[in-house]
Amino acid sequence: MSDRTRGVPAGESPLELARRCAEVMWSTDAASEALGMELREVGPGRAVVAMSVRKDMINGWDVCHGGLVATLADSAFAVACNSRGRVTVAAGFDVDLLEPAHLGDRLVATAREVLVRGRSGIYDVTVSRDGDDGPVTVAVLRGRSRSTGREIG
Amino acid sequence: MSDRTRGVPAGESPLELARRCAEVMWSTDAASEALGMELREVGPGRAVVAMSVRKDMINGWDVCHGGLVATLADSAFAVACNSRGRVTVAAGFDVDLLEPAHLGDRLVATAREVLVRGRSGIYDVTVSRDGDDGPVTVAVLRGRSRSTGREIG
Amino acid sequence: MSDRTRGVPAGESPLELARRCAEVMWSTDAASEALGMELREVGPGRAVVAMSVRKDMINGWDVCHGGLVATLADSAFAVACNSRGRVTVAAGFDVDLLEPAHLGDRLVATAREVLVRGRSGIYDVTVSRDGDDGPVTVAVLRGRSRSTGREIG
Amino acid sequence: MSDRTRGVPAGESPLELARRCAEVMWSTDAASEALGMELREVGPGRAVVAMSVRKDMINGWDVCHGGLVATLADSAFAVACNSRGRVTVAAGFDVDLLEPAHLGDRLVATAREVLVRGRSGIYDVTVSRDGDDGPVTVAVLRGRSRSTGREIG
Repeated sequence: MSDRTRGVPAGESPLELARRCAEVMWSTDAASEALGMELREVGPGRAVVAMSVRKDMINGWDVCHGGLVATLADSAFAVACNSRGRVTVAAGFDVDLLEPAHLGDRLVATAREVLVRGRSGIYDVTVSRDGDDGPVTVAVLRGRSRSTGREIG
Repeated sequence: MSDRTRGVPAGESPLELARRCAEVMWSTDAASEALGMELREVGPGRAVVAMSVRKDMINGWDVCHGGLVATLADSAFAVACNSRGRVTVAAGFDVDLLEPAHLGDRLVATAREVLVRGRSGIYDVTVSRDGDDGPVTVAVLRGRSRSTGREIG
Repeated sequence: MSDRTRGVPAGESPLELARRCAEVMWSTDAASEALGMELREVGPGRAVVAMSVRKDMINGWDVCHGGLVATLADSAFAVACNSRGRVTVAAGFDVDLLEPAHLGDRLVATAREVLVRGRSGIYDVTVSRDGDDGPVTVAVLRGRSRSTGREIG
Repeated sequence: MSDRTRGVPAGESPLELARRCAEVMWSTDAASEALGMELREVGPGRAVVAMSVRKDMINGWDVCHGGLVATLADSAFAVACNSRGRVTVAAGFDVDLLEPAHLGDRLVATAREVLVRGRSGIYDVTVSRDGDDGPVTVAVLRGRSRSTGREIG
């Protein structure tokens, strides 16, 4: 079966594929949109997503809800692990919440593929914010992905 | 220093303390409120929080964003680990996303303390939804907490 | 295909199956034997394994090597996740090392199934030692299992 | 108090400090020695440790016990997180076991510091073996460290 038969444009590069997959996913991702996330970059096995901490993201201790920091990282992970052309879901993740994020902080999540083996993959995400002396790491997340095998698009 | 001096009502039981701490936290937790979460139960080292999956929680694959399932679990974890009277934060968590949740599903997160040792604690959370044959486990989360030592309230 | 055809003795109970699977695994597990582990109990989805901390398990800070505490917990996890009759491997685990174990301590790892869904499973293991005031939790491990589908025995 | 007073040789570089700390730890680490581990490299926040899979490391499914793969990674993590001059212990770790290791395989664990913040640190370890087409990743581990504050040596 040729690539064309499978609906992949002839001569599509890995970068073009990554961008097309991201467009398919992101255009219908109501959750990431509702949280004001911006998809800044996407490439084969990688993605950068940004989010500003709003009033409705603050928890009872006056910092950004840790779950929402993880949600930002999870969105970047999702774009990265779906960049190879197959519908892929998060099987789970481990997150370390290292520094609080505050109202108005601009958080940037950078995801990269550690490895893919069969239908399983491992991705690392770093979430940072600007600090007085350069970027401060707010959280690190390691994601475990599982491909469904279905083609995107 | 007596309990009274520290602002703890004389004769307050562990259950009363847990409820008071939850009230302090929950009343100012804008993030959990914005996601429509309902605090159903609280006790010493435990909490039950519910959330319905709304349109603005759906991701690009037409299921609830995994990060928001984790956020629900993290909220239950937060209430449970703050139930002993000290301001406590999540140092991190590991979540396994086992089943998708769909639009309209009512998710219930049940958190319980595994152990507390010094300022560190371990909490387990199960997120379930109603299925045709009883509750279905959507996710399990294990949280790592760290107490600041500061008193709540 | 009847149970008999698949080599399962007619009328074998879940407990008998668990014991048979454990015997098959444990009798050739050179690693657990070399570490002096004792399989104390096995049942459907559960196992108890004990190990004494020897001189050759001590690390540079004069306590039991954390990796070996995890190895004990992993052995209990392995017996528990193979108790249903299918060859099952650990896909990974998250361990919290809560208290040091010392030379001569008798460690007991208790594993239980949290849930199985398709070929994936989640197991919790607690490792404890005797303390002056009862058992002390040394570590907790959450294991992620993956069945190969092959039958044991 | 001068560096000299604290027993740190005047003018000791970060690399010299890392080597000295490793020597102190490694020379009394009976567990790593009993498993035949070889410390290949050490530097500020990094370490490389190798181990060959022996008969007494094989489990009931005829592959290297996953706990021992994790133990190798944990040893590399320990050297890396103690390279800054303070006694530091593993608070926990998350490991993904990606490929089996077999009898005779030479495993190499490479640890690097992701970040240190106060007394807490995050370290990534990759365990690989030689394959027909270059190195194969057997496991990845993310470690959480906690410094005691005590000086090494």
